[in-house]
Amino acid sequence: MSDPTWVPGASGSGFGSDHLPFGRWALPSDEVRVGVRVGDFALDAAIALTGTPWEELFTEPTLNRFLEAGTRTWSDVRATLRRIIADADEALRLEPELMPVDDVTMLLPVDVPDYVDFYASLHHAANVGRLFRPDQEPLLPNWRHLPVSYHGRSGTIVPSGTPIVRPRGQRRGPDGPIFGPSESLDIEAELGFVVGVPSELGQRVSVDEFDQHVFGVVGVNDWSARDIQAWEYVPLGPHLGKSFATTISTWITPMEALLAARCELPDQSPDPLPHLRGTDDGGLDVRVSVEIGGHVISQPPYREMYWSPGQMLAHMTSNGASLRTGDLYASGTISGPDRDQRGSLLELSWNGAHPWPSAGADRSFLLDGDEVVLRYQAQGEFGGITLGEVRGTIVPAV
Amino acid sequence: MSDPTWVPGASGSGFGSDHLPFGRWALPSDEVRVGVRVGDFALDAAIALTGTPWEELFTEPTLNRFLEAGTRTWSDVRATLRRIIADADEALRLEPELMPVDDVTMLLPVDVPDYVDFYASLHHAANVGRLFRPDQEPLLPNWRHLPVSYHGRSGTIVPSGTPIVRPRGQRRGPDGPIFGPSESLDIEAELGFVVGVPSELGQRVSVDEFDQHVFGVVGVNDWSARDIQAWEYVPLGPHLGKSFATTISTWITPMEALLAARCELPDQSPDPLPHLRGTDDGGLDVRVSVEIGGHVISQPPYREMYWSPGQMLAHMTSNGASLRTGDLYASGTISGPDRDQRGSLLELSWNGAHPWPSAGADRSFLLDGDEVVLRYQAQGEFGGITLGEVRGTIVPAV
Repeated sequence: MSDPTWVPGASGSGFGSDHLPFGRWALPSDEVRVGVRVGDFALDAAIALTGTPWEELFTEPTLNRFLEAGTRTWSDVRATLRRIIADADEALRLEPELMPVDDVTMLLPVDVPDYVDFYASLHHAANVGRLFRPDQEPLLPNWRHLPVSYHGRSGTIVPSGTPIVRPRGQRRGPDGPIFGPSESLDIEAELGFVVGVPSELGQRVSVDEFDQHVFGVVGVNDWSARDIQAWEYVPLGPHLGKSFATTISTWITPMEALLAARCELPDQSPDPLPHLRGTDDGGLDVRVSVEIGGHVISQPPYREMYWSPGQMLAHMTSNGASLRTGDLYASGTISGPDRDQRGSLLELSWNGAHPWPSAGADRSFLLDGDEVVLRYQAQGEFGGITLGEVRGTIVPAV
Repeated sequence: MSDPTWVPGASGSGFGSDHLPFGRWALPSDEVRVGVRVGDFALDAAIALTGTPWEELFTEPTLNRFLEAGTRTWSDVRATLRRIIADADEALRLEPELMPVDDVTMLLPVDVPDYVDFYASLHHAANVGRLFRPDQEPLLPNWRHLPVSYHGRSGTIVPSGTPIVRPRGQRRGPDGPIFGPSESLDIEAELGFVVGVPSELGQRVSVDEFDQHVFGVVGVNDWSARDIQAWEYVPLGPHLGKSFATTISTWITPMEALLAARCELPDQSPDPLPHLRGTDDGGLDVRVSVEIGGHVISQPPYREMYWSPGQMLAHMTSNGASLRTGDLYASGTISGPDRDQRGSLLELSWNGAHPWPSAGADRSFLLDGDEVVLRYQAQGEFGGITLGEVRGTIVPAV
């Protein structure tokens, strides 16, 4: 079946009617609108849904009322928007309302109350273990029993396109610690999950309740200063090595658009404890591409991730911690088994020991001026869908 | 000089005119008001300041507009309120407006965007090192060079008085990990610092700029499930062992009320790097009291803390991380050199090896039904001031 839409150029663009990611943007007048992307256009949901029961969910400059409304509303709104962009009678009304995405300023799609970052790739965790604890088993004893994770700084989450200032920080020097610009600035190519429906303090959310709470996914680049991180991280984990910036895509792809991308998880051994098991749990077949300076240097496969998005959610709430609308949890670096599937430069360059070739030069970590683009592709109903890209250029330390 | 106020019972109560902590409460009608505590009364700041330039800062059900207004406004509002509660002519107008604090429901004084927890007590960090790494130096190599810290979950910060449900979680068992109610539920007696004036992404805040950004302090109990934490915390730090609840006091004591409590820091050796030094840096002489079941079991002295509040702030922003109004950073467990000055049961019981005596029985960690109260006292201008208490009772796991 081909994609039935009247929106010019939408079919086959990765932003057809099987995708419909949600976002937030400022018009040239500075007014903020919310809605969906179709082809290369932003469509104001309040205008598209005028006269329907859902119009009022989109009249404020935030997606929160829609996100907290739950699965039935998410499905109904999606079905209604699909009908509208397929109905030639609606073209007359709405074609003048389509805003080219290049003419608007994309904002963070949500304000993120709490941000948790996981460590859910076995290949990434094992690579990091081999690098930093070469005399021990690559995986620490807890790794196969729970999805290891920590809280990040939500206040420094920025939308795709925001320049990234090279952070200063304290790191090991030859004669004791020194303070200065990071010399090992890195990326972490990740996928992030956006909570729609909140939960009460004390209420656990099971693996099978994932679909009831999580609205969709964003691309995430969890920028990391490895030298700062290596010095600070014992015993309470990473902080300043991460908290200077995290970039997310400006479009949230609904979980419902990813039904065709659902796949089986890799084998989990040993079996997780019962609170981390679901009856219909699985992974996502999302293909990531890491570009630096226009060169693709890696293609991490999300389908290789060990822990599922539902298991991460169940773990995160297993102690009764509550969820708020807009909470973001990210997968941690996505790395596959092969070298060209690694999602960080730490792994790609083996901490600088084996620089990766790029444009004729060997490189380890990021240089000032480098532009990093993470791209995400998945199977959709009518072909491929293109998840929101994550873009950032390194500018020198101030 | 004695405390000049007409408010009944305020002088000598710990909530005299030299204190004036700010808070937020719900009236029996559910309307939310903000203002200050004087004696055993809550005084609505919008009413008290009617007709002044500051009235409008307090007409919304949040302290944020006041907190972001900055030091000049904080001082002016404080001076005006002091004049009002000293002026007998104002008694006629305002005495009928005083609400007994027992008749209102205290709320979180601020919504906390980002919550960071430090590890700033040398005695605490060394005790934990001796317990968990008995064959090594108690302090890790980075400890004397930077204030070690991590992000906590802001969504599970609750106001004093909220019951604390014993968390479930994964921990080590005799034959592999098991999941169930924590068996080593603990407290961490801390002091927290509330950011008023935000900072821009990329802007460092120096030690000397502390007073320009931090409005005041709250009491903090960073509840900790030691068995969950011990199993999960490598390599990314604590998460589920902490994220189930953090209790803060419902009153924020302004830094200006703590001028008489400023004191010198303990000797810092080696000298911190320049970005962690200030020209007029210091500590706070706040005396903490830990009560369980009505028995005082410990009296941690805040003046023993190694890292200053200004150093914590400078470190936290040294990579350019921005601050938002309401951001909270806590000191980490306050422990002094003596056994009865330790701020956690982990230390008081030496991880269960030397239970502490209480009401005729030896105890290690918290039991269901235990009520924990943290109290904080400091020198004020006219005598002692009583910072907001932090109270919570353990209820069984669900």
